[in-house]
Amino acid sequence: MRRITWIMALALSIEASAQTVLDVTKFGAHAGDGSDTTPAVQEALARCRAQGHKKIIFPTGTYDFWPDRAAGEYVYASNNDAGLKRVAFPVKNLQNVEIDGQGSKFIFHGAVNPFVLERASNITIRNLTIDWKRPFHNEVRISAITGDGLDVEISEQFPYRIAKGLLFFVGENGESCGKRNRDPCPAGDMLEFDTQKRETAYMVRDFYYAPYIQATALGNGKVHIVEPGFKGTPGNTLVFGMTNRNHPAFTISDSASIRLENVTIHHCGGMGVVAQRTRDIELSAVKVTPSAGRIVSLPADATHFVNCSGRIVMRDCLFENQLDDATNIHGIYAQVTRRVSAVEIEVKLMHPQQRGIDFIAPGETIEFVHAPSLVTYSQARAKSVTRLNDEYTRVVMHTPLPQELRVGDAIAGASTYPEVLIRNCTIRGNRARGLLLGSRGKTVIEENTFHTPGAAILMEGDARYWFEQAGVRDLTIRKNTFDNCNFGVWGKATIEVGAGIEATERASSRYNRNIVIEDNLFRVFDRGRLVLAYSVDGITIHRNRIEPGSAYPPTNQQGPRFDITHSDRVKIEDQQ
Amino acid sequence: MRRITWIMALALSIEASAQTVLDVTKFGAHAGDGSDTTPAVQEALARCRAQGHKKIIFPTGTYDFWPDRAAGEYVYASNNDAGLKRVAFPVKNLQNVEIDGQGSKFIFHGAVNPFVLERASNITIRNLTIDWKRPFHNEVRISAITGDGLDVEISEQFPYRIAKGLLFFVGENGESCGKRNRDPCPAGDMLEFDTQKRETAYMVRDFYYAPYIQATALGNGKVHIVEPGFKGTPGNTLVFGMTNRNHPAFTISDSASIRLENVTIHHCGGMGVVAQRTRDIELSAVKVTPSAGRIVSLPADATHFVNCSGRIVMRDCLFENQLDDATNIHGIYAQVTRRVSAVEIEVKLMHPQQRGIDFIAPGETIEFVHAPSLVTYSQARAKSVTRLNDEYTRVVMHTPLPQELRVGDAIAGASTYPEVLIRNCTIRGNRARGLLLGSRGKTVIEENTFHTPGAAILMEGDARYWFEQAGVRDLTIRKNTFDNCNFGVWGKATIEVGAGIEATERASSRYNRNIVIEDNLFRVFDRGRLVLAYSVDGITIHRNRIEPGSAYPPTNQQGPRFDITHSDRVKIEDQQ
Repeated sequence: MRRITWIMALALSIEASAQTVLDVTKFGAHAGDGSDTTPAVQEALARCRAQGHKKIIFPTGTYDFWPDRAAGEYVYASNNDAGLKRVAFPVKNLQNVEIDGQGSKFIFHGAVNPFVLERASNITIRNLTIDWKRPFHNEVRISAITGDGLDVEISEQFPYRIAKGLLFFVGENGESCGKRNRDPCPAGDMLEFDTQKRETAYMVRDFYYAPYIQATALGNGKVHIVEPGFKGTPGNTLVFGMTNRNHPAFTISDSASIRLENVTIHHCGGMGVVAQRTRDIELSAVKVTPSAGRIVSLPADATHFVNCSGRIVMRDCLFENQLDDATNIHGIYAQVTRRVSAVEIEVKLMHPQQRGIDFIAPGETIEFVHAPSLVTYSQARAKSVTRLNDEYTRVVMHTPLPQELRVGDAIAGASTYPEVLIRNCTIRGNRARGLLLGSRGKTVIEENTFHTPGAAILMEGDARYWFEQAGVRDLTIRKNTFDNCNFGVWGKATIEVGAGIEATERASSRYNRNIVIEDNLFRVFDRGRLVLAYSVDGITIHRNRIEPGSAYPPTNQQGPRFDITHSDRVKIEDQQ
Repeated sequence: MRRITWIMALALSIEASAQTVLDVTKFGAHAGDGSDTTPAVQEALARCRAQGHKKIIFPTGTYDFWPDRAAGEYVYASNNDAGLKRVAFPVKNLQNVEIDGQGSKFIFHGAVNPFVLERASNITIRNLTIDWKRPFHNEVRISAITGDGLDVEISEQFPYRIAKGLLFFVGENGESCGKRNRDPCPAGDMLEFDTQKRETAYMVRDFYYAPYIQATALGNGKVHIVEPGFKGTPGNTLVFGMTNRNHPAFTISDSASIRLENVTIHHCGGMGVVAQRTRDIELSAVKVTPSAGRIVSLPADATHFVNCSGRIVMRDCLFENQLDDATNIHGIYAQVTRRVSAVEIEVKLMHPQQRGIDFIAPGETIEFVHAPSLVTYSQARAKSVTRLNDEYTRVVMHTPLPQELRVGDAIAGASTYPEVLIRNCTIRGNRARGLLLGSRGKTVIEENTFHTPGAAILMEGDARYWFEQAGVRDLTIRKNTFDNCNFGVWGKATIEVGAGIEATERASSRYNRNIVIEDNLFRVFDRGRLVLAYSVDGITIHRNRIEPGSAYPPTNQQGPRFDITHSDRVKIEDQQ
């Protein structure tokens, strides 16, 4: 030690200072007393920004967060609802920061977004649990089916009131949703869950009602709901979804090298993790799972990746009981609405929840796509990109527009696509599907367990409704267990192509390419399809095992197990 | 001409080019064919910005505007609802521009904001009419009062539907309001108008209902509304207000030298003109008046001025049949929520429609105000102003905070106040009041005609509910005709102080000062108060004429005509 010169000492001291750990309790945060942790977090993040600190820690405990003093940010989060948000952790323009909850529970209250990462890089968030005091969705227990509807019981977790013959749910403190206290909170669509199996009820459909729920109070938390068309099973749980996806747990935009480790999301008011235009993101032991007394975790997709690059890795994750898919990885198609000049087009973001997303940038390669077939017929480089508003954009190309270009065609970024690895994850009990795979980068799905009511793996993509760019180029699905999937209505096979290619175009389109399905175990309860695909160039199915059982009543499907049409290079070695 | 040298010719040519008139039809606008004028306007404004043009003209005709290709802007408009808007005329960072409609009619469709002026100076907008194809409010004709409610007739101007026993109004093309077509448009509060007199029905109250309108269809545009408490007169018009003030006709922020001349606003989805932090604004022959077949013009205040400076002039204007006051001129009080240090406080914008407004700026003089009395007990200069979000702001002063400062006190900007002149305007038939005067600059109200159901002139201001800074210092009200005002419930006198000073504080507070009321004509129908004031320092009432009549049934009021309490320097020369 004595030999360290003063210059070395100074260097070490600077290094140590840069690495100094910020303890949030030093900024006024108190665990366990219900006080607002938000101001302490703002202060700690400001220190990180100003003084180059690297780590924020939370001594193990329960921390509460309110929107009041959170940062105000207008947030566009693809496939969620944009708007002016209050952000508890605004991780913006920050590098090399670690946030360690040390096993703490973060309890959020009301209209607040936990984490928004924007233009951030090398960020690790670990060892914490996110939940809400009063969830954004609602659950009731069905006690009886009557002639004109049903009787339900509502637990204190989901406060409500009956007014003018209508059922309205209210907030944590009995407050209503509108700016005036008499405006009620709208409730979303109804879906029945099997309370015992903790999954969507066998073959149950979404029950879309409109516009409001007629109801009468029966006393003691019991309510009669008027819904003459409703069918359901007493004892099951009826879930009312959320009308807006305003508050994802993690919104990650224009960032790089993002890691979430050992993070549990019990609930949030949107998707669990939505990442867009971000390079290299890893989710390790991220768990989406309901907290005690609830059957639903979060009321949207567990994760969602849009126009990402580099690598997307999810390992050792649990995605259960959310009200939509486990993941969806895709780009964005914009519709061509006008040919402005020989080099300029006007395009429109068609899906309302894509509005405001910077889906292409100057310098990027753009693909021109025929919407009915999803065939890419040309490419060009964007010279300038000018947004008219969150919906319309004008794009000038470096080279003349292709002759074939027509209004109604689609364009999308085509410079880069992420590699994807999803390993040793468990996906179960949620509404709809498991993995929606749409990256053109190398994609490996291995050693996962699926128990989904719809397709476990779906290859989507269309330029007519969702406007999501997809089409795999190199997909391996191996060593997974597909445990009695398709016990619900959201899919026609366990592994399925659902791309929006018009029937008349399927013979010529080859939207998905180079798919290998090998060494998987399929547990089944009937003769339904395991793989359904069309318009594929290259699909190999071999060394898979099928294990029949009786987990559910069989459907009347009669296969074939592997149903591949309008495809080239099809290699099926397993028994049909 | 021959003597003009080439340099002079060049100079003249540059001058001429700078003054060149831009005709919108040269950019693709077509009058009368229902096409969207918005892209042509964007193009013309871009030319003004880039090439220094000075004038945009519209050849006389009818021009339509849709939101689709309008500019996207997040707009904070005080006392209206903030949000991401589509702006037809985004007059932003522009100087020395004239927009001349040449008598044209502008018809707007849906969720679009006609004019947003921001950091603009020397702008004149003249000779145009603003209307909406499908208004944001709704009107129905009462045909019968029944035991449990009323029967109404609804004209085709106000499309609606009945679903699940509820009445919902729908858009121009039958569309609903939510992102999904099954989400209905909420309807606002009900108010009854006298169809013959074209004004609010005698002594009628706002009918606030909650939360939705129960109704059954009777066929042929006839509907039965269930509202057991409702009282009204068959033949009268029942108006449903607007739930949000999203689309003012003119939003003017941080601008200077703004003139609106010969502009008619038949309708819009918010206030007619809202100006904030703007110096020198003149409204000349601006008319707020309903278009054919409607009884209501716009569903909010006709005009509203917040934290303005220089001069506010309104001359030869007509403000009739809007659903709120003719004008309101005031500042903003923010509530002190924390004393952060010896020189720093945290304050909160309390009224939801003030959120996001930059109510003070660094360098400005700040007044500290005792909320119950509205007494200013100290001043200081702001050194820095940091917004946490649209609600909370931190302010550091140049000097230590006053000793008396308590959480719950208010602060406001106190550097400058506008001079106000309102001359030869007509105000009638609207809901509520006429002029709400709160500027501390010299204010002259002369030669106007008022026929308002509430107070014609009101001096408001409070730091407990609306949080509006007011308190006149030099107000002259002369040569006006007050024509049978106070035939409704919104006021206790024709000229009234309504400042929110607690009763126990009125003896010591002198919030309004130096008021002269002279040479006015009051037409009256009973013995009601003409002037009601408290906490005034200096009020002179003389040379006014009172003309009794029987325009309405008398109320049981018995005066005094001039009721002044807790005031100094009171001079009443007219007969009580």
